[in-house]
Amino acid sequence: MRNILMTIEYDGTNYHGWQRQKNALSIQQLIEESIEKVTGIRARLIGSGRTDTGVHALGQRANFKTETNIPVGRIPLALNSSLPPDIRIINAVEVHPDFHARYDVVGKKYRYRIFNRSIPSAVFRNYSCFIPVKLDIESMEEAAGYIIGRRDFSSFCSSGSMVRSRTRNVQMLEFETKGCIIDMSIMADGFLYNMVRIIAGTLVEVGKGNLSPEEIKTILDKRDRRCAGPTMPPQGLFLEEVYYRGILDTPGTM
Amino acid sequence: MRNILMTIEYDGTNYHGWQRQKNALSIQQLIEESIEKVTGIRARLIGSGRTDTGVHALGQRANFKTETNIPVGRIPLALNSSLPPDIRIINAVEVHPDFHARYDVVGKKYRYRIFNRSIPSAVFRNYSCFIPVKLDIESMEEAAGYIIGRRDFSSFCSSGSMVRSRTRNVQMLEFETKGCIIDMSIMADGFLYNMVRIIAGTLVEVGKGNLSPEEIKTILDKRDRRCAGPTMPPQGLFLEEVYYRGILDTPGTM
Repeated sequence: MRNILMTIEYDGTNYHGWQRQKNALSIQQLIEESIEKVTGIRARLIGSGRTDTGVHALGQRANFKTETNIPVGRIPLALNSSLPPDIRIINAVEVHPDFHARYDVVGKKYRYRIFNRSIPSAVFRNYSCFIPVKLDIESMEEAAGYIIGRRDFSSFCSSGSMVRSRTRNVQMLEFETKGCIIDMSIMADGFLYNMVRIIAGTLVEVGKGNLSPEEIKTILDKRDRRCAGPTMPPQGLFLEEVYYRGILDTPGTM
Repeated sequence: MRNILMTIEYDGTNYHGWQRQKNALSIQQLIEESIEKVTGIRARLIGSGRTDTGVHALGQRANFKTETNIPVGRIPLALNSSLPPDIRIINAVEVHPDFHARYDVVGKKYRYRIFNRSIPSAVFRNYSCFIPVKLDIESMEEAAGYIIGRRDFSSFCSSGSMVRSRTRNVQMLEFETKGCIIDMSIMADGFLYNMVRIIAGTLVEVGKGNLSPEEIKTILDKRDRRCAGPTMPPQGLFLEEVYYRGILDTPGTM
């Protein structure tokens, strides 16, 4: 059995998220169907993690085991030919038989895009979150300083999450602005459920002046979801990169 | 009669271009219907120029005359409430009664976005043109040097155009790359029909190595459309700004 690791870009607008489910179209299902169509054999696709309805990916990763003898370099083209244009396999490599796209993750990078203008964007409406109130980026950057580091992120995790530990190491959290677009980039060894969207929502509260940067420290200490800001909407979120030990990145483009 | 000049952003994907026509949905028609709905009076909308099917605008401009007493600052919100989310009025100002959004144009800025990777983009598929062959940006920049200036652009104009003069002054032509995205920005006092898309197509031929940068000079001299490169597809094209004398720009964001 060969073990194939793919890098996948998708526009989440028209899907009910990554994970296969009954009565709703998911990205995982379409790629699994495409693998079956192309190789003639059913395969279970293991994603690096789920993404919610409307969330996009520039560099999602997933592996599957297969007996097919299609050369690995041909797999993107072969699968893309039976996938809709809003899902593209951008890379495929053969990995160790034990490799697991979820268990072996050592880090991820996300981007959250805000469109900060009094009028919503027509072109970027599905690829950003519209915030009409002028945000103070400097205080958001100051607040970001309290997020960076190895911390218990219970306050930044949606309830219902059944993980053992809520400690994560946020290695990078940066803002980049260009015109009305504000991009928040965040990298960590792992993320809790809705963590990026809650961090973005809390930093937006800081940018609006509803919270001071220092209050982030208190919010973290409380370990209570109700203390943090709102969960931002999905369309601003992009899964940019998933990191594994010893496997080269094939980053997407924004 | 008041004369209102609006700045308009639209996602051209689902429309048959700017100009009103029978049996096909246009941006002009939807905005004219919205004006009638909001003010109760029919108005003819004069755009700065047409854009083709699939072409986007971040800063299209158009004026209309109206008896309405809605304050000009409220017009964007009022019209947006009856427009689909892929068309947004981002600004409105009152201008001199003689102002004409097409005749008074003194310049325009366009962007042509290329997605240069072996696999098409899922997220940017409707907002860029996919070119799988690696482009040599340096030679494209060299070629751009021959385009800049006041010249006869007959070779870069689709046939059927009935303009008096084909001389235009290209004041700026620049490339900016970020990851797989290559943006060509071009500013001129005016553009011939399909001029940006033909310039982009010709510079892409240079980037592929099919034309040398110096050959641009010969192509210009021939004044023959058949000598230039292909017309690039519409989805990579964005009308960014339209300039008028004495009217402040409200540029869109990319």
